[in-house]
Amino acid sequence: MEAIGRNRWVIAEGYIPSESSFSDRALASHETACILNAANRDAHVAITVLFPNRGPVGPYRVTVGARRTLYLRFNDLNDPQPIPRDTDYASLFESDVPIILQHTRLDSRRAEVALLSTVAYAEA
Amino acid sequence: MEAIGRNRWVIAEGYIPSESSFSDRALASHETACILNAANRDAHVAITVLFPNRGPVGPYRVTVGARRTLYLRFNDLNDPQPIPRDTDYASLFESDVPIILQHTRLDSRRAEVALLSTVAYAEA
Amino acid sequence: MEAIGRNRWVIAEGYIPSESSFSDRALASHETACILNAANRDAHVAITVLFPNRGPVGPYRVTVGARRTLYLRFNDLNDPQPIPRDTDYASLFESDVPIILQHTRLDSRRAEVALLSTVAYAEA
Amino acid sequence: MEAIGRNRWVIAEGYIPSESSFSDRALASHETACILNAANRDAHVAITVLFPNRGPVGPYRVTVGARRTLYLRFNDLNDPQPIPRDTDYASLFESDVPIILQHTRLDSRRAEVALLSTVAYAEA
Repeated sequence: MEAIGRNRWVIAEGYIPSESSFSDRALASHETACILNAANRDAHVAITVLFPNRGPVGPYRVTVGARRTLYLRFNDLNDPQPIPRDTDYASLFESDVPIILQHTRLDSRRAEVALLSTVAYAEA
Repeated sequence: MEAIGRNRWVIAEGYIPSESSFSDRALASHETACILNAANRDAHVAITVLFPNRGPVGPYRVTVGARRTLYLRFNDLNDPQPIPRDTDYASLFESDVPIILQHTRLDSRRAEVALLSTVAYAEA
Repeated sequence: MEAIGRNRWVIAEGYIPSESSFSDRALASHETACILNAANRDAHVAITVLFPNRGPVGPYRVTVGARRTLYLRFNDLNDPQPIPRDTDYASLFESDVPIILQHTRLDSRRAEVALLSTVAYAEA
Repeated sequence: MEAIGRNRWVIAEGYIPSESSFSDRALASHETACILNAANRDAHVAITVLFPNRGPVGPYRVTVGARRTLYLRFNDLNDPQPIPRDTDYASLFESDVPIILQHTRLDSRRAEVALLSTVAYAEA
């Protein structure tokens, strides 16, 4: 399997609701970056988070194993600091190996779950 | 952080419902352009709005600070004129600095919130 | 305003539910191709519809005025024949002027409206 | 009709809920790859499925007829093995003919249906 993807990705829209109608992890409100590394070596990814009214935070660092996926919940990022809830943000991903990035949100502020997913913006 | 993105973007589909089931800003029906400026200088963006049955309106002008995001609600645009509700429209974004643009709608005409998000169409 | 967009577009996924929970046009189940023509001359668009188990149908022909949008409901296409309901299909758009195409569906088979939108696949 | 599309596609985000609120096929939770082959010869597609914590599975093989679409439900894939439910995965599509791939999910774990669709990531 040869490498496929790009090294730099952007999710311009991010928002983690603080409210959920469900307590189990699958249906709690969450925001996920789905990262695929189809290459034969690990991908080291640095994530920078940007905001409307203050400077960028990061990098957050994650590793995606060779020929593996990583479903990264922004809710789980804590180092250097948690992502604030109920706050607009954007995220920039820079990887040393080409990856593919898709963005998903499950919003269960209301009991009826709303779902969205979109391929992120990529640059070589 | 080097610049990333494109200078011209299009959201071909726009629609602001006049109805909402909720009065708080987070859950009222709205349509948002999420703009990321990852560059080290401000981005000056001119927005033109196009319609099915009459000529374009604009430009609306916004500035996105260096290394900042802007979550622009179309509902809030007033100069040169408000975007009509319950009306189909498209929008063209032209920036002097490369940006990334993602389009989001929260539709709460019904109590069950519907949510969509998609990366806009870009040209260099 | 200079032209922006591409001449060939594909929506690989189409489906018009025959059921709706609402009778007004805004909330009835529908599938829309949102076409923007930002150029200074009319765009003539030929649409071919493809199916899983039989040959393509078309072309359907529409014109998008200069600097106008067209919100084309697949539900409304009748010539050469209506799009069958509850049936999977894909659509190919070929235009003599560059356009931008976004695909939207509102599904109200259930009283809770589900909404999706995505920029179509483009080729020069 | 000339060929349009790309030969390699990725859906970075996949998830088949094991629960559904409806038993009929149209409204049961499902995950679909909508494949269009606009060319005049059949497309032979090999699908590899990747996971967070174990090696890739595949290839799954499907054929998309000339000038036909194929709506492939991941739920229906069984050879070499079924896709596990309630599990994150990604999928890589490699075709001998250019195709277009769009990804759709209908999630009916709750009675209110959530719907998403996005064009997959493509490489030449």
